[in-house]
Amino acid sequence: MPRNREVAIVGAGRTKFGELYERSLISLTIEAGLNALKEANLERKDIDEMIVGSFITEIANEQGNLPAFLSEELGINIPITRTEAACGSGGSALYSGINAIKSGRSDIVLVGGVEKATDWDAGIAYMAAASEWERIYNFNFTGLNAALARRYLYEYPETKLEHLALISVKNHKHARDNKNAHLRNQITVDQVLKSNIISDPFTIFHCSPVSDGAAALILVNGELAKEYENPVYITGSGMSTDSIGLYARENFTTLKANKLAAAAAFQEAGRTIKDVDIFELHDAFTIQELLAYEELGLVEKGKAWKMIEEGHKSSSRHVVYNVNGKEIIANCGGGLKADGHPVGATGVRQAVELYHQLTGKSDHPVNKSLGREPRVGLCQNIGGTGSLITVHILEVKT
Amino acid sequence: MPRNREVAIVGAGRTKFGELYERSLISLTIEAGLNALKEANLERKDIDEMIVGSFITEIANEQGNLPAFLSEELGINIPITRTEAACGSGGSALYSGINAIKSGRSDIVLVGGVEKATDWDAGIAYMAAASEWERIYNFNFTGLNAALARRYLYEYPETKLEHLALISVKNHKHARDNKNAHLRNQITVDQVLKSNIISDPFTIFHCSPVSDGAAALILVNGELAKEYENPVYITGSGMSTDSIGLYARENFTTLKANKLAAAAAFQEAGRTIKDVDIFELHDAFTIQELLAYEELGLVEKGKAWKMIEEGHKSSSRHVVYNVNGKEIIANCGGGLKADGHPVGATGVRQAVELYHQLTGKSDHPVNKSLGREPRVGLCQNIGGTGSLITVHILEVKT
Repeated sequence: MPRNREVAIVGAGRTKFGELYERSLISLTIEAGLNALKEANLERKDIDEMIVGSFITEIANEQGNLPAFLSEELGINIPITRTEAACGSGGSALYSGINAIKSGRSDIVLVGGVEKATDWDAGIAYMAAASEWERIYNFNFTGLNAALARRYLYEYPETKLEHLALISVKNHKHARDNKNAHLRNQITVDQVLKSNIISDPFTIFHCSPVSDGAAALILVNGELAKEYENPVYITGSGMSTDSIGLYARENFTTLKANKLAAAAAFQEAGRTIKDVDIFELHDAFTIQELLAYEELGLVEKGKAWKMIEEGHKSSSRHVVYNVNGKEIIANCGGGLKADGHPVGATGVRQAVELYHQLTGKSDHPVNKSLGREPRVGLCQNIGGTGSLITVHILEVKT
Repeated sequence: MPRNREVAIVGAGRTKFGELYERSLISLTIEAGLNALKEANLERKDIDEMIVGSFITEIANEQGNLPAFLSEELGINIPITRTEAACGSGGSALYSGINAIKSGRSDIVLVGGVEKATDWDAGIAYMAAASEWERIYNFNFTGLNAALARRYLYEYPETKLEHLALISVKNHKHARDNKNAHLRNQITVDQVLKSNIISDPFTIFHCSPVSDGAAALILVNGELAKEYENPVYITGSGMSTDSIGLYARENFTTLKANKLAAAAAFQEAGRTIKDVDIFELHDAFTIQELLAYEELGLVEKGKAWKMIEEGHKSSSRHVVYNVNGKEIIANCGGGLKADGHPVGATGVRQAVELYHQLTGKSDHPVNKSLGREPRVGLCQNIGGTGSLITVHILEVKT
């Protein structure tokens, strides 16, 4: 087969996200993988290579060497790589999966992500986000994001805590029709603001839940993609890293990795932010989704509040933002906040969401709210407090 | 720059291996990385992408998200991927690094491996090697390898425990001149056989040590390699996986992944085992090096004992095996047994060893014992008890 360096998604699958006490790490992984294979009309023996992202299986599941673990359960003997980058483990797996196809060494690659950690008392924060020098001051993952939010609200006083709350309200709204979502309850700004404080200024409703779940994608070489009816091309892919410690950053309220990863992805795709119809953004905490609006280039720094406010006036089933006359939707199925956050699965789940939206296969389509069929999607996955960020551009050929 | 899909090593570095209580995870990683960059005449800002293998930093060092950890310490903001595959984590990183170059997305990739675990009470075995069903019977990593050895000795009675002991004696002999090796003491077959039993039939001298250390390689695109005096091309690269549990294998004493990974690497390289001059084999336990002799195709199954016996009669500074009239050397600097086994670093260290031998830069060259300059090398890295295996073919162009 002749090979080019184009990469397309031809199948995607996932499990329900939630506190799935009755499920095992492996049963989740396999359910997502088989769903993706089924959509691509492939069998497990067709897979050339597999990349799986997971964060904390060593501790939460007492299981390392995930590649061999998967080989045993799937009964296949192929190259399998496991990536780890905290909450960015899934995006990291996707990045490696794209390399595997572009390398010409593999034509069909399964990219998966999984986490099964709700039945474990999570003391994981220090490893993902806080550096040694932050841990001394008892900073944890939530605390660092809260500090970032507090500073942002100080530097950009037009932005109020209510604007951050609206992001959470939106994501719960978007999860309403998503049968696989962890939290489908509807919430109000008042509830967000008045619920229990986790780390000031964040109440629990500013924070995504810990979820169990898995997600999987089938990537194929561009030549193979031509045989499929609905391929979604990954035209751009960027990754950047930054210091774990916030104190070591050039600017406390700017995630440099956001800009670098997005610039790399847009350049590779030959696209700009203006071309994107739907976004999957890493709202582990509400402040992160707001920063993404600004740092990916939808709006100027400090001005996202206005877009948020106006978007919430829309009467459609989804919150639609109007950016210079173009309507867009962010976190179509509820994002990390409401769809859920099974750490290693999240970066893969985002691409699954986009694939289903872009191919008309979603059980919670946003096309009616958007007023058109989405053609270009962007997903942004974060490890730590912005210390590793991947951005991917997905599109259907017109 | 025009890009082809050739991959070459143009620099390699490592630290001393051992019980390095005074060193940190990061200082080891950086020392190895800077040594490799220096050899390649490059600076850290020249790196396009980085892949780092490590096994157990989450537990031994309370540090996840290694990509961001490295970004902070190195002051660079680039794509960084961390791979984990137990003792095969380094080989997995190398495999991904090759993909990164072949993909055309990165021209200069630093592949690193690190582990810093000697100051931690290692309870890691169950995660790397034993499956859930083996743990029930209290099997650990050493126990599984011992069971495999016991069964092998039963099935192939010409092979004696003394032959396995000779492999350990050889590797200590080869570490004698290696200034970076963990264990440079010389041992005898008698010492191996009469020292403390760890897991019958293995005494402590059948087992590699737990070491601290790091290793790094600079991979570049084939076009860039032309600018270097001494590039070593990675012409073949294979990875395969198999079940974690030995009970689930087709054959208890055969590592299927050895054959599959080697076949893939040889095919890609257009080489056979007959072309290889020097080998770096994964002797975590002596039985694994013996199995590699047979399963990579140096000798028939059950016949390695003869090659081992005869090799030890040689009077040169290294044990030289004669295979159908061709002389070869295995584990030039002492292998895992004597050079040491810092888990995530091992798969990378093997390629560092080959690079230095093939370019004449080694401080413990094997060319005199071999009677010629080595041109082709092979390294084989294992995760678990053969559950993930990578094989890489390295060669200098003649």
